[in-house]
Amino acid sequence: MVPVKLLNLDHVAIAVHDLDAAVEGYRIRYGVEPLHREVVEQQGVEEAMIPVGGSFIQLLQALAPDTPVGKFLDKHGEGLHHVAYAVVDIEAALAHLAEQGARLIDAEPRIGGRGARIAFVHPRDLAGTLIELVEIQE
Amino acid sequence: MVPVKLLNLDHVAIAVHDLDAAVEGYRIRYGVEPLHREVVEQQGVEEAMIPVGGSFIQLLQALAPDTPVGKFLDKHGEGLHHVAYAVVDIEAALAHLAEQGARLIDAEPRIGGRGARIAFVHPRDLAGTLIELVEIQE
Repeated sequence: MVPVKLLNLDHVAIAVHDLDAAVEGYRIRYGVEPLHREVVEQQGVEEAMIPVGGSFIQLLQALAPDTPVGKFLDKHGEGLHHVAYAVVDIEAALAHLAEQGARLIDAEPRIGGRGARIAFVHPRDLAGTLIELVEIQE
Repeated sequence: MVPVKLLNLDHVAIAVHDLDAAVEGYRIRYGVEPLHREVVEQQGVEEAMIPVGGSFIQLLQALAPDTPVGKFLDKHGEGLHHVAYAVVDIEAALAHLAEQGARLIDAEPRIGGRGARIAFVHPRDLAGTLIELVEIQE
């Protein structure tokens, strides 16, 4: 069993109704700006990645109401959506979690924003938190 | 006006019913352990700080049901609670936010975990997110 090694808190994701307004809010209030902005069709979102120290704030706007983020916004309103940890080897991490009986959303990695290989772990697995693993290409 | 300068994503806080169980879950699933554990009476929590890269996962257990975290758990269950950004000068940051008309929970800094000077910004201020500012002593 290869234990998961968390390298970094890659990003904290926040679901928002209006991406432009949220980006502007972060700029005015906190003096930070997106380094990267991208439509990720497969996840049904447009995302803005705002660097803060060695991590990112990820602002997420749904592309349609019937997407995961659209449904989250409808149910909860704007707010914290998930946290993403960087790992070196996402297959090894998923194999470890599967062996532990973790409740995985993605048993296999898929491609997320920035072309990264990602996988989600269900919030019912640990502490009510939707966790994303991101394999960092070094 | 001194703009706020965010140095780092200091921590992501997760409200949990059972701190020991959540700490053990993070240890088993993700191979990480608390560096620091503390009762912060003034905030009505016991907290465990788990380092991940240059940030922390902060697990929060309420000391009583009628605390802010106790009420959050009663209403929402376990999950993401707030995000904390490190700043150099918390008074300058609060002065900037007040000038912007931000909805502050703390107009003046108070003492949080690790003896740090902290202040909270209301989730209705920006993107539904409870934000904590933490002044980092360098």
